[in-house]
Amino acid sequence: MSGIMNGHRETITVGLGGRAYDIHVGHGMLDRAGQYLKPLARGIVPVVTDRHVADLHLERLLQVLTNDGIAARPIVMAPGEASKSFAGLERLCGELLDMEIDRTGLIVALGGGVIGDLTGFAAGVLKRGVGFAQIPTTLLAQVDSSVGGKTGINHPLGKNMIGAFHQPLLVVCDLASLDTLPARELSAGLAEVIKYGPIHDMGFMEWLEAHMDALRARDRDALAHAVRRCCEIKAEVVAQDERESGLRAILNFGHTFGHAMEAGMGYGVWLHGEGVGAGMLMAAELSRRLGLVDAAFCARLRVLVQRAGLPVRAPVLDERDNAGRYLEWMRVDKKSQAGEIRFVLIDGPGKAVVRSAPDALVREVIDACCAPA
Amino acid sequence: MSGIMNGHRETITVGLGGRAYDIHVGHGMLDRAGQYLKPLARGIVPVVTDRHVADLHLERLLQVLTNDGIAARPIVMAPGEASKSFAGLERLCGELLDMEIDRTGLIVALGGGVIGDLTGFAAGVLKRGVGFAQIPTTLLAQVDSSVGGKTGINHPLGKNMIGAFHQPLLVVCDLASLDTLPARELSAGLAEVIKYGPIHDMGFMEWLEAHMDALRARDRDALAHAVRRCCEIKAEVVAQDERESGLRAILNFGHTFGHAMEAGMGYGVWLHGEGVGAGMLMAAELSRRLGLVDAAFCARLRVLVQRAGLPVRAPVLDERDNAGRYLEWMRVDKKSQAGEIRFVLIDGPGKAVVRSAPDALVREVIDACCAPA
Repeated sequence: MSGIMNGHRETITVGLGGRAYDIHVGHGMLDRAGQYLKPLARGIVPVVTDRHVADLHLERLLQVLTNDGIAARPIVMAPGEASKSFAGLERLCGELLDMEIDRTGLIVALGGGVIGDLTGFAAGVLKRGVGFAQIPTTLLAQVDSSVGGKTGINHPLGKNMIGAFHQPLLVVCDLASLDTLPARELSAGLAEVIKYGPIHDMGFMEWLEAHMDALRARDRDALAHAVRRCCEIKAEVVAQDERESGLRAILNFGHTFGHAMEAGMGYGVWLHGEGVGAGMLMAAELSRRLGLVDAAFCARLRVLVQRAGLPVRAPVLDERDNAGRYLEWMRVDKKSQAGEIRFVLIDGPGKAVVRSAPDALVREVIDACCAPA
Repeated sequence: MSGIMNGHRETITVGLGGRAYDIHVGHGMLDRAGQYLKPLARGIVPVVTDRHVADLHLERLLQVLTNDGIAARPIVMAPGEASKSFAGLERLCGELLDMEIDRTGLIVALGGGVIGDLTGFAAGVLKRGVGFAQIPTTLLAQVDSSVGGKTGINHPLGKNMIGAFHQPLLVVCDLASLDTLPARELSAGLAEVIKYGPIHDMGFMEWLEAHMDALRARDRDALAHAVRRCCEIKAEVVAQDERESGLRAILNFGHTFGHAMEAGMGYGVWLHGEGVGAGMLMAAELSRRLGLVDAAFCARLRVLVQRAGLPVRAPVLDERDNAGRYLEWMRVDKKSQAGEIRFVLIDGPGKAVVRSAPDALVREVIDACCAPA
């Protein structure tokens, strides 16, 4: 991982040997997308997006790419988690095949986490692998999902259950696209920003505590610093453990509980980041009950999550056996081994550990953290 | 690639570094499957098969695995290409998730090419990758599809269009399972056997000419030699070019035309091997018209394909514009680049080359090789 400052722009490299790639971060980067994509483009270049993002950015991007001599063609999916499904994948693959995209082609994902995950997976399995580039337009996608090559779709039995590791060839983060992001999605993205503090960098957590109001007010410098620092940490972790044989799992802090919320309520009721926000507080509480962190740390994290505009109480998934329902969903988590749930816990501020916990203790945490019915 | 003889059994290794794996070939190997799988098994081991294969081999395999202390559980799919679809994949993934298979698990594919391709792809994308073993029960699967890690499903717009490279951990070929194979499927498998001659080993082609009657009569020694030699050649090619950046494409001899037949008639009307059989003759004829081989070679290959019990005339896909329809289907072939079809051609007996050809010449070949309407 390395960072090169260049005026208001910065380039971070994800060091993966022959598959290394750059993340370009800056304001107005959409206007430069053509120059970054041009060396990779060949024939028709599909730009996959959703209706909401299309209304905001598609016309401009197509214009920019056309000006650079790229034969860009849009594919517009329905917005929301429902597209991240077998049906959405089949439809997208059909459109890509209709465009006769071949193995030497380039597919562009323009949008948030759903579009990036779905498009990356389609690129990964179309003709057993086509190159793709990410142009993330949400905070969540810029600081997390567009980097690192995790792609996939949901299954009714679990979030992100079907997928592939398929690294992008390039990531272009235009901070200006955050200007039009709905407040709720900005907050959801802040959940993934916050997670990097407790698991890896308490200095960054302090910076977040000092700049949370600026971030929510979309202060350009604050957003630039947050996106850059998150991409740096993620690039560092992914370069060390691309396939999540160990270290990389720490990036799932809050996700084990959060995925259960998303699946249990039905995808799209809560945004992914909202589940992660409440999920981090549950994971911190579980860490506390295991004696790994103190109550002061949990309280501090809770304040930060709340200031990000995120829910701090988890939803009740089942009025009769809420803890049982959570455990059921969490048991299908991808980190589970032989039916044993593995949690990303905080082992002292700034350090994460992946381990199991007694069911009884997990039940206590669920009971303590869930909103009254 | 190496071969170790051990009585009637033989082990061939696919040399892929840390992902190297063995192909065990022999009579009665199903009874030894437990001892081979035991070191890889962990928790519940799903055995994916289809109804036809289940009737023949499932009970015995489950008994063998249970005797070796493996908690095997069957998943029975509908027979035929229809299962190799998005719907089949979604159903299979659901069953695997229901069994709470985790990333450290093992999935077993028991059956022909459809079951192996589908199960391997499901294993490749379930939780972004679970290990799997192949127990191929058809000649086609034993000599080709179970080895090399190409997995995938069909799309209405093209054969094997959606898939992944996901190598098995082990392949167990029981030659005894060929005893119950329908004659039509034995012939289909012989198409993939024959292909190794023209593209790589004319000595093997001569051996096939001498032993084709024995193979069709299911002579044990003849089948043992054919399966072993095909696995050796395939292992050698895959070890050199796992991801098909070059050499590996020669294994697709006959497949560009064959896939067009399969897709154009609707999957399952012709068996895959039948398309490959007629497709090899078209590719040979195209090679001849490009001056790469002589008419005697084409006639010789035609006799061998016919003796294998395979069709030697290709089907008419469209009464009005048959050649146009073939070209349309072939243009979506995975080897195509920028709309240009790339054919595996014979560049002198025993040597393959991948290249394009003028549309007009391809049309002539299609007109010459297709059955009258």
